[in-house]
Amino acid sequence: MQTLRFTAESSLDAIIERDFTLGSIPGVLWSPPSAAGRAPLVLMGHGGGTHKKAPAMSGRARLLVAGCGLHVAVIDAPGHGDRTRSEHDEKEIAELFRARAAGEPEGPIVVRYNTCLATLAVPEWHAVLDALLCWLGGERRVGYFGLNMATAIGVPFVASEPRISAAVFGQHWPDALAETARRITVPIEYVMQWDDEHIPRSSALELFDAFGSPEKTLHANAGRHKDLPRFEAESAVRFFARHLSAPPPSAG
Amino acid sequence: MQTLRFTAESSLDAIIERDFTLGSIPGVLWSPPSAAGRAPLVLMGHGGGTHKKAPAMSGRARLLVAGCGLHVAVIDAPGHGDRTRSEHDEKEIAELFRARAAGEPEGPIVVRYNTCLATLAVPEWHAVLDALLCWLGGERRVGYFGLNMATAIGVPFVASEPRISAAVFGQHWPDALAETARRITVPIEYVMQWDDEHIPRSSALELFDAFGSPEKTLHANAGRHKDLPRFEAESAVRFFARHLSAPPPSAG
Repeated sequence: MQTLRFTAESSLDAIIERDFTLGSIPGVLWSPPSAAGRAPLVLMGHGGGTHKKAPAMSGRARLLVAGCGLHVAVIDAPGHGDRTRSEHDEKEIAELFRARAAGEPEGPIVVRYNTCLATLAVPEWHAVLDALLCWLGGERRVGYFGLNMATAIGVPFVASEPRISAAVFGQHWPDALAETARRITVPIEYVMQWDDEHIPRSSALELFDAFGSPEKTLHANAGRHKDLPRFEAESAVRFFARHLSAPPPSAG
Repeated sequence: MQTLRFTAESSLDAIIERDFTLGSIPGVLWSPPSAAGRAPLVLMGHGGGTHKKAPAMSGRARLLVAGCGLHVAVIDAPGHGDRTRSEHDEKEIAELFRARAAGEPEGPIVVRYNTCLATLAVPEWHAVLDALLCWLGGERRVGYFGLNMATAIGVPFVASEPRISAAVFGQHWPDALAETARRITVPIEYVMQWDDEHIPRSSALELFDAFGSPEKTLHANAGRHKDLPRFEAESAVRFFARHLSAPPPSAG
């Protein structure tokens, strides 16, 4: 197992922020100052074009850490944040901007690119989870929280990671994900925008329907893709508080 | 305007419970012990076959009154609770039980009966709101909270009642309601069950879609009709806290 290397530590408003790397993967771990021995951990993925410390990430982390006493870890996805872009990244991003400028649908490009990123990112998340659990020590419950690109990465990750016991997903096409989503059976909260100009309503409903989870909730809000209301972050926090607060199943 | 007549008053765990009648309509008003001058009021409707003090009503009232300092009023719907059943009520209820025993769809009977009850109940709610606002005094924001039969009554009530500024609905067929729902523009939270054995999924989505509200949220949970999770009541409470906490628009 690779070892976490901590590169910076700071503290603000009762949240400890630790920058780390795992091999070439840069990440951040936000923790409460006096975490209880078994405080749960939420792995959080950022959206396409952003990075591990984007305001949406640090804002949600604040709610989870300061509000619920959980640990939160985010890593830069391949080609994002502090990581270098490959030639393939550059090509796909240029193609996306071209389609956007031409008024063509973004879906086919985003789905193709995100699927490719997921094949790289899923093994990274498994390794990061190994290393974080080892460093934190002891057993603890783990959740996953990721919308948009982080749903494209999160669905195959959660489907192949038995240590995740609850997940919040949303705002993605079902094309490359629906079959994998059927294998997920942990509690799910899924957010969609009712008037999404990129993801057809029926596609969003199809992906939600695909999850094999007996316990799943869809939150659909009026508005376009970027109009996702802020209160959905608070809802996700309550979801994790509900599902991760029980002690982890005993080993053996 | 008819006058409220209070028939009983008790207090338990910091909630004052006042039984009242308005003409032949029996109701209950739950209030915080020291309500602020402009504490909002939530009108709450009960489901078919139950009554104003059924556990679902008193439980939600507790969350709203003790949790948020709001007033909550519930009345017995026509033919329910302390009210006498008409011959028509008896006939429709017998028909519903017959269909249920025969394994026939309940929808057509429930929709027909609820539509009929709504024509009686809507003017009652307007009169009760008049009387309650008069008795409470001062301006205050008002919400409406009602699922199942209380959605069949609530949609035409809210569409014709400009004093309602937010509403929680759910679990009904669109047949008699969709056209009226288009006239509703206040913020809405709508709950449905994803695997409802009575209300087809597409019908539930059709009714949510019909609301004219720019701000509306759908909560769909896996499970059958009666499996509606308890946390949806807490969500409704947060919805009202968010939308009713602002001061009412000044008169004039």
